[in-house]
Amino acid sequence: MNPEKDKLLEILQQPGSEKRKSVLKDFSTLFPADIAEIINRLNEKRKKIIFSCLSPELASDVLLELDEKSKFLIIEDVDDKKLISIVEEMESDDAADFIADLPKEDAKNVLNSIPAEESIEVKKLLEYPEDSAGGIMQTELVSMRETSTVREAISRVKSISTEVEDIHNVFVVNRNGKLTGILPINRLLLHPSNTPVKRLMNKDPIAVKTTVDQEEVALIFKKYDLISLPVVDIKGKLTGRILVDDIVDVLEEEASEDILTIAGTDEEELLFSHTIFKVAGFRLPWLIYSLAGGLITGSLIWIFKITLKEVISLAVFIPIIMGMGGNVGTQSSAIVVRGLATGRINISNFAKLLLKECGVGLFMGLICGSIAGLIARMWHGDPWLGIVVGFSMFLAIVVAALLGSMIPMIFHHLKIDPAIAAGPIVLAINDIVGLLIFFGLATMLLGFIH
Amino acid sequence: MNPEKDKLLEILQQPGSEKRKSVLKDFSTLFPADIAEIINRLNEKRKKIIFSCLSPELASDVLLELDEKSKFLIIEDVDDKKLISIVEEMESDDAADFIADLPKEDAKNVLNSIPAEESIEVKKLLEYPEDSAGGIMQTELVSMRETSTVREAISRVKSISTEVEDIHNVFVVNRNGKLTGILPINRLLLHPSNTPVKRLMNKDPIAVKTTVDQEEVALIFKKYDLISLPVVDIKGKLTGRILVDDIVDVLEEEASEDILTIAGTDEEELLFSHTIFKVAGFRLPWLIYSLAGGLITGSLIWIFKITLKEVISLAVFIPIIMGMGGNVGTQSSAIVVRGLATGRINISNFAKLLLKECGVGLFMGLICGSIAGLIARMWHGDPWLGIVVGFSMFLAIVVAALLGSMIPMIFHHLKIDPAIAAGPIVLAINDIVGLLIFFGLATMLLGFIH
Repeated sequence: MNPEKDKLLEILQQPGSEKRKSVLKDFSTLFPADIAEIINRLNEKRKKIIFSCLSPELASDVLLELDEKSKFLIIEDVDDKKLISIVEEMESDDAADFIADLPKEDAKNVLNSIPAEESIEVKKLLEYPEDSAGGIMQTELVSMRETSTVREAISRVKSISTEVEDIHNVFVVNRNGKLTGILPINRLLLHPSNTPVKRLMNKDPIAVKTTVDQEEVALIFKKYDLISLPVVDIKGKLTGRILVDDIVDVLEEEASEDILTIAGTDEEELLFSHTIFKVAGFRLPWLIYSLAGGLITGSLIWIFKITLKEVISLAVFIPIIMGMGGNVGTQSSAIVVRGLATGRINISNFAKLLLKECGVGLFMGLICGSIAGLIARMWHGDPWLGIVVGFSMFLAIVVAALLGSMIPMIFHHLKIDPAIAAGPIVLAINDIVGLLIFFGLATMLLGFIH
Repeated sequence: MNPEKDKLLEILQQPGSEKRKSVLKDFSTLFPADIAEIINRLNEKRKKIIFSCLSPELASDVLLELDEKSKFLIIEDVDDKKLISIVEEMESDDAADFIADLPKEDAKNVLNSIPAEESIEVKKLLEYPEDSAGGIMQTELVSMRETSTVREAISRVKSISTEVEDIHNVFVVNRNGKLTGILPINRLLLHPSNTPVKRLMNKDPIAVKTTVDQEEVALIFKKYDLISLPVVDIKGKLTGRILVDDIVDVLEEEASEDILTIAGTDEEELLFSHTIFKVAGFRLPWLIYSLAGGLITGSLIWIFKITLKEVISLAVFIPIIMGMGGNVGTQSSAIVVRGLATGRINISNFAKLLLKECGVGLFMGLICGSIAGLIARMWHGDPWLGIVVGFSMFLAIVVAALLGSMIPMIFHHLKIDPAIAAGPIVLAINDIVGLLIFFGLATMLLGFIH
């Protein structure tokens, strides 16, 4: 996007304060996200030097875009006075998120030093769960009484536009502060200035309560193609608004969470600022879990060791049965997890989905079972081995499709993240069931024949 | 969100045309997405009846929100004249997407019948790749010359606001049509009407070329917190704009694609309108691939059958070695896939990541290898078995972490979707490598000892 950035970075890394000074002046013309990107790539000393040159306003925007590591390195050195002036520049939701991440002592300090009005709002926001509508909303907004006119609305937007960025809508409230309408700001341009806002506003506006989960909020944005969404308290009183750029972040966060949970690690790992031991800490629980699953599967094999010793060619098919069951289970569970996340699957259509999964499993089981059975028959010249391999693969695939779709749904129902089920849990259960079918059938049939 | 919807649906499913009529009238007060949700849940006949009652304007909005199955069922029955009036109501990008999905004959028909101006624009849009900036942009926008004033801009917004929805910015162009600035619409409210737009606009605006991939476009929206983004041709001439609600869809689509590709199926499956055979068609290629991988792993076991027959307890550890290698590989590859998708990993920081993965692998390998080795030692009472199991698990985990991070990156470099690598491919390769290490070590050590 910006080849000039590389050149700037080069100059900044050269000594020679004259050149550097002029570059720092150019900095203020860059977007905060670009400045942050440059700072992220510098060494500790240079990060701090450049940051210290920024105005509080720019510093506040840049700080929000920095990676975690740079952020904490820089904050360490910023004195309280500057930190407070930076926080004052932030919007309420960003300020709350930022303060929540500070060390306790600093957080208290900042909260006590910013203006009372802002501090009260930030404290209120800090009380909502981080991933609820209340936790992601900001309190800066433009609201008007129903009785106001277009002229009044315009002068309100004018007077407030220095503090509140990104005004897309005027929210209309009745005398109790209850939200009654939304007025897109471009409509203020289209109508005579004495028109009452009540006549122009969209009635029955879409709004969410503060307690709604952020994933559900994102679905509402997506469904209704929104740019900003009012948030109301339990009585319907307007308390904040959520902007679409925060929803873009939520969507990315939730998708990362799903993918990385299925893979058996933590979304936090994506920050890349953690030590090797911290990363291992995210992943080891899943591995220990998987180790336990493997030991159960291994014990099953041990139970059937006599069959196995007699027909050693059975061992050849252990990875195949496990692999296929695991794959089918992962396919089905990923469909359910993603369907739940995007709102396309719910309790009411789940029975239909399960029926379909059953059909898909039967069909795929038939095909893969036949292929595997034929290969076993030809490779080892034993027709009974072919039957055991083919039939148990068929069964393992059907069971994997069913368990793979049911387990995440059960987790969802129990209010546990279904993505947790879709990873190592589904794999382990399918391994166990698959091998049980395989060795069970083998012992019955082959033991009987040989 | 809307408990009334269920009541409406109930009435619609009851006979009695009087009640139904009044309900249909109420319909027009609902949001298109809600009407679509209701229609999706009705049977074929009722879908068509309700759709036929909607005005072309509402019908066009509803059609875009319907699921694939309902959409095609309904279009089947809509006559050409109504279809054309519906398409005329759509914005250019929606019209292009809609026409692209129609049967060829119908598409030609519609393109020839809508007004020439719209038809030319839609045909142009249809030429861009579906997942490029050109493919997702719309041509409806407000643009002004640099020399215009605020007054002129306001009157332009007024005159165009019946055709163009969601005006957030006025794009400023020079006399060659080249984009030179962006003016947020609320700024029109804040300044005297004779101010030239050139003085108010943001210079050096962020814009993308028509050829940029939609995933990259989404990253730009995210990075700069945008609501709309101008699209320019190769010469910098303004040709369209992309709105954030389309980016929300892109983000969801790309995330689904990643998750489902890793799981070994196709994002298409999420539409839920496919037959069992079609779904199996998405999944079977992956399974056949996995079957082939399993056969290779099985052949390895067959090569070592003498070792295995001698020490049958080795079989017990096949699932454990495979499972752990598979899990670690999936963890590492998911991190890389997601890091690439969110723009946090690139060629320049990949070496650092690989080094870290190596460290994480070594540490996790040490812990899991020790645990597994100890268990093997205690369970089967053979210290050499403990060493074989422990050491080969250690190696398998380290290799899995490295291969798991490298393979997706290689795919990315070859311009193949890295998510393809992160699924069954990484699993199969890790299975093969893991078992090779395990049986290789076992044959060397145990063959030597026993």
